[in-house]
Amino acid sequence: SRSISLAVIPGDGIGQEVVSEGLKVLSAVLPQDVKLETKTYDFGAKRWHETGETLTDSDLARLREHDAILLGAIGDPSVPSGVLERGFLLKLRFAFDHHVNLRPGKLLPGVKSPLAGDREIDFVVVREGTEGPYAGNGGVLRAGTPHEVATEVSVNTAFGIERVVRDAYARAQARPRKKLTLVHKNNVLVHAGHLWKNIFDRVGQEFPEVTTDYLHVDAATIFFVTQPERFDVIVTDNLFGDILTDLAAAITGGIGLAASGNINPSGEFPSMFEPVHGSAPDIAGQGKADPTATVLSVALLLQHLGYGEQAARIEAAVAADLAERGDAQRSTSAIGDALAARVSG
Amino acid sequence: SRSISLAVIPGDGIGQEVVSEGLKVLSAVLPQDVKLETKTYDFGAKRWHETGETLTDSDLARLREHDAILLGAIGDPSVPSGVLERGFLLKLRFAFDHHVNLRPGKLLPGVKSPLAGDREIDFVVVREGTEGPYAGNGGVLRAGTPHEVATEVSVNTAFGIERVVRDAYARAQARPRKKLTLVHKNNVLVHAGHLWKNIFDRVGQEFPEVTTDYLHVDAATIFFVTQPERFDVIVTDNLFGDILTDLAAAITGGIGLAASGNINPSGEFPSMFEPVHGSAPDIAGQGKADPTATVLSVALLLQHLGYGEQAARIEAAVAADLAERGDAQRSTSAIGDALAARVSG
Ligand SMILES: CC(C)[C@H](C(=O)O)[C@@H](O)C(=O)O
Ligand SMILES: CC(C)[C@H](C(=O)O)[C@@H](O)C(=O)O
Repeated sequence: SRSISLAVIPGDGIGQEVVSEGLKVLSAVLPQDVKLETKTYDFGAKRWHETGETLTDSDLARLREHDAILLGAIGDPSVPSGVLERGFLLKLRFAFDHHVNLRPGKLLPGVKSPLAGDREIDFVVVREGTEGPYAGNGGVLRAGTPHEVATEVSVNTAFGIERVVRDAYARAQARPRKKLTLVHKNNVLVHAGHLWKNIFDRVGQEFPEVTTDYLHVDAATIFFVTQPERFDVIVTDNLFGDILTDLAAAITGGIGLAASGNINPSGEFPSMFEPVHGSAPDIAGQGKADPTATVLSVALLLQHLGYGEQAARIEAAVAADLAERGDAQRSTSAIGDALAARVSG
Repeated sequence: SRSISLAVIPGDGIGQEVVSEGLKVLSAVLPQDVKLETKTYDFGAKRWHETGETLTDSDLARLREHDAILLGAIGDPSVPSGVLERGFLLKLRFAFDHHVNLRPGKLLPGVKSPLAGDREIDFVVVREGTEGPYAGNGGVLRAGTPHEVATEVSVNTAFGIERVVRDAYARAQARPRKKLTLVHKNNVLVHAGHLWKNIFDRVGQEFPEVTTDYLHVDAATIFFVTQPERFDVIVTDNLFGDILTDLAAAITGGIGLAASGNINPSGEFPSMFEPVHGSAPDIAGQGKADPTATVLSVALLLQHLGYGEQAARIEAAVAADLAERGDAQRSTSAIGDALAARVSG
């Protein structure tokens, strides 16, 4: 009989609330013969305040034993900016080599986009997750003086780019439109940009059926609002991917719906799935948060673990729920209940 | 009697066409007693193909003699990506220390935004123009091998940040809403981000009437499409500013309308004014390009040179023209004629 060992990290703010609903839907959709074992970890602001720890080596060793990780949200205004982001979220992505940061941008029927007109938006952003400007490679000189210099080094390797570019081609190849767009800024960031472009062109020879396209990041943001239909699969670096996926979430109904997977395709380390939204401390504990992004992240998790049929059932349930949602406000758990009922139906 | 000595750089593609109309409107709006002297320079793709030169020391010396520079567009697909951008556009911005890259984002009446609903968008982005990821500080190791590493170094100085931040506060102070938003990514790019934030907070003490706000760049892109009304003045780094201003152009009617000024506030070097759009080679020579962005750039130029009343007349003419424009397609020169007639009326 099969089993899934899942590490659950509710985290801060609304994290706890949305993760509960994600687990509710996960339990409802799994076949009877699959044993789900979950273990909850208390990472986040509270633990940092109490112990000064964000993510230790022994935490990583324990997390590594699981098949996958489900995360709610990490971050709180009481913690200085950067401490939990660099010390937990990015540390985990880097330690577990989550180089494929997968973020679908799909406008589902019934969902209101801030864009005018009827739009058909259905793309996937493959964001590199382990290098670029996120490498944490920078520093300061003459701190606190009028002559201070602060640097941030974007580190890009042929190894790191090639694997994520190849992953993106494979995803494009598997989709009906078979189109892949590289987004960078190779007219200014010439060193990194040309390395990306060269590898993109070379790997493309292995995928003759995939149509390719290159856009500078500034031009890409224009097309996101004027012509989002043109995108199928997008591959881009860590920072451009961060920016574009928030914009993608905005045009497809908001970060309340945006799912993401931090994937290690080799399976050497467990992959981590999380909603794109943050901890939203202003609405935490009020049962107001929309758990849909977390539920869709559970679908990505199932897909990754080989439960494609169950993933598709979650996506269909979300689509049906959204189509009927209207303007009525429902609580976090009401939405979770509705989705759980649909997937087990 | 007064005079303006203007360097004119038509450049590539539609550059020539839009610059002609910009000059037409400039001549029409200037008071009789102001002598306008223009000198045209042939920088761009053609010259690079013929001579291999983009912008020489002696070019810079000649340009420096002028009061200001009006540029159409530089760039052509026949030139490898980066050559003219780094070798001309950025070289000029850096050589003339254009640290205030000013880009208004205003939705004028009658202009269609891709955003749904009636939006009131009226903000200004103050983009740092002489450092950050644009410093040109990077390189490659083991080029062309599977072990290639490409770096890009964002260089940020207290000196460079403070002057642009102070300029942005002064602009916010002079506007009715008096609000300034800093955009960065200080939860990830902690060194540069904290330097920006510290200076932003410190300089803010000199402007007690200005309300301040901080947003991560990814969150800012969301607000650009969901709540652009919240912005008044935005100050940000070179790369984030590049991305946000194209998005700003998109939501306010497109880059056909977006103006920019590359300003050296001290006047030590001439400032340069250019439309945000590029050379658009696909429509070059057809009289189809919209010269409005160039005309609005002329307004920024006049404002900078102390002709505030004339600048306001151009803006009013553009607003009136846009309000009546409807869906009819007019040629480049027809739009220029209409605007020239309005400003001289
Ligand atoms: C919280 C932050 C570190 C993170 C990022 O920048 O990657 C977030 O914005 C995201 O997109 O997952
Ligand atoms: C052409 C390019 C170098 C330039 C930039 O990145 O600054 C352009 O995109 C702009 O915004 O003026």
